[in-house]
Amino acid sequence: MKRRDFLGAASAGAVLAGCGSRETSPAAVASDPQQTLHWKMVTTWPKNFPGLGTGANHIAKLINEMSGGRIHVTVYGDSELVPAMEVFDAVSSGTAQMGHGAAYYWKGKSEAAQFFATVPFGMNAQEMNAWLFYGGGMELWREVYAPFGVLPVAAGNSGVQMGGWFNREINSLADLDGLKMRIPGLGGEVLKRAGGTPVGMAASDIFTSLQSGAIDATEWVGPYNDLALGLYKVAKYYYYPGWHEPGTTLECLVNKAAYAALPEDLQSIVVNACLVVNGDMLSEYTARNNAALQSLIHEHHVDVRAFPDSVLQRLRALSEQVVAEIAGKDELSGRVFESYRSFQRQVFSWHDISERAYMNVRES
Amino acid sequence: MKRRDFLGAASAGAVLAGCGSRETSPAAVASDPQQTLHWKMVTTWPKNFPGLGTGANHIAKLINEMSGGRIHVTVYGDSELVPAMEVFDAVSSGTAQMGHGAAYYWKGKSEAAQFFATVPFGMNAQEMNAWLFYGGGMELWREVYAPFGVLPVAAGNSGVQMGGWFNREINSLADLDGLKMRIPGLGGEVLKRAGGTPVGMAASDIFTSLQSGAIDATEWVGPYNDLALGLYKVAKYYYYPGWHEPGTTLECLVNKAAYAALPEDLQSIVVNACLVVNGDMLSEYTARNNAALQSLIHEHHVDVRAFPDSVLQRLRALSEQVVAEIAGKDELSGRVFESYRSFQRQVFSWHDISERAYMNVRES
Repeated sequence: MKRRDFLGAASAGAVLAGCGSRETSPAAVASDPQQTLHWKMVTTWPKNFPGLGTGANHIAKLINEMSGGRIHVTVYGDSELVPAMEVFDAVSSGTAQMGHGAAYYWKGKSEAAQFFATVPFGMNAQEMNAWLFYGGGMELWREVYAPFGVLPVAAGNSGVQMGGWFNREINSLADLDGLKMRIPGLGGEVLKRAGGTPVGMAASDIFTSLQSGAIDATEWVGPYNDLALGLYKVAKYYYYPGWHEPGTTLECLVNKAAYAALPEDLQSIVVNACLVVNGDMLSEYTARNNAALQSLIHEHHVDVRAFPDSVLQRLRALSEQVVAEIAGKDELSGRVFESYRSFQRQVFSWHDISERAYMNVRES
Repeated sequence: MKRRDFLGAASAGAVLAGCGSRETSPAAVASDPQQTLHWKMVTTWPKNFPGLGTGANHIAKLINEMSGGRIHVTVYGDSELVPAMEVFDAVSSGTAQMGHGAAYYWKGKSEAAQFFATVPFGMNAQEMNAWLFYGGGMELWREVYAPFGVLPVAAGNSGVQMGGWFNREINSLADLDGLKMRIPGLGGEVLKRAGGTPVGMAASDIFTSLQSGAIDATEWVGPYNDLALGLYKVAKYYYYPGWHEPGTTLECLVNKAAYAALPEDLQSIVVNACLVVNGDMLSEYTARNNAALQSLIHEHHVDVRAFPDSVLQRLRALSEQVVAEIAGKDELSGRVFESYRSFQRQVFSWHDISERAYMNVRES
């Protein structure tokens, strides 16, 4: 799932929502708690998009609540204030004080950014959080965004996504040959090297493209968001697991100057509101994917299938190549890659005997 | 790992730390943000105990920070203000405004409480959070504590623990016969039904008991806390996974009257500080267990072993019996059990094709 996919889904007539904001200087806020500071949060999602957009709303609500109204955050969906792909620049320039998106959208700023969202065959949600908060990840992320005057905060996670919807059975590597699949980013590059044809496409076009046969397959997010898009009506098979996005971290972007001007209590409130949603969004996806999967299987009789091991092994080998190539782009990307990979190796070996071993024995 | 284990570890000469608190009425705080409200947080852990105790400190720090000093929380270790096993009552009576512990310590108040910490072969951290926040768990937890005037908030997780340290090889069910193992609570009951002899013992006695052969085995927490206890010096084998504690949720207890008297912004700050630590503690355990495991294997040459499948299958069947028996204790325990079990069944089936499937394919 990538940001550009939402472009078609954003309501066409969306206009800048009038928020009647009365601008207040941070100094005034610090000295007079009755003053309200009006902040804008631009997002890469259509307004109220389930999980991602509602997560952004949740951050705003928590900041409003915990600050007792001293900061009032208004959330803008994709293209309400700026288009999704301009969210980073809008926060960098101060057009908006905050943004919500995912770091892989900003690889044009730094290739290293992709590691702070997700990479194929990389770390899952729990592992990403451990790396970010106790493995040096956040320090590197702040370094990557520092030249742009933007402070990143982890602010959500989708969990392991699904592999996608297919109208072709995938029984061997040969079935990837010429497969036309809507899959963006690094996952698309991996598919291409495996013989497939990655296609870029907005969310609104996926349904008809699958129906007409213009594409053979598409990935999206997971059961919760996929059920809403109705893809089970036009695809035969629902494959797992989502090797290309094994636990995508969402991000909050904060304009550094706006942040620096806040008194310390409000700084802490802004950051911690994001951290609450960092955990909460994963809980929401876990519970709602859970329920949506039951509906897909029992009400819509979806044929859920596992990718064959041989296919996954090939995709994993190609993913390692593709991800390692990022390291060579520049010095900082090299350091981020090394930190990510070193932590990944160790945490995989710990989770092999804890989370993974437990999951494999708890059911017969 | 259970609370009572810490009794021996608490410093004997611990006295009530003088905090020079100036009691202030909540109403005064609401109307005058320069006033400081002094709160006490009693905990079931020795002061500054790594992971659990430091997590409690972290909650206090966040409340102090986000409230701009309007609430100042002082944290008390086990027996500094009240003994660990009296933490719940201290919060209930208002002796302390907050507490930090784990719900399975309070099964004397309600058998159902155990479901809000962990049960053998139950849900892991990510699944527990999904149940609590999006599956009806928190509503039930609040109902269980309501008669005591205590508000629960999820406030930490250990992740999947280790199975424990053994001086006897476990190759079959027969090896559990007469096994003297320090393992408390529901896990101990399961071991007993499998033919073993569960033993209760404080943390400070474990090392010498293993060394002398008074016990054959012990569970504790995971590599991070286990390494610190030095158990690798007196045990031959380190078994996984921790079937008896697959993701223990820690809790913050808040006195309801004290909470109700707070203005809304401070109420939100208190709850959200706990929720930040709910995620953060899991990240800390994941990263530090990771690093400690490397040390145990490569520096201390620990023999890490998996429990045989036949043993785990038997323990799982017995665990189902033991956990189901809680449901019959009273009407509310029955409802909690049904909610937990229904969510568990669905989330296991979702995680089978997402988190678990991914973990099984990401490494060959």
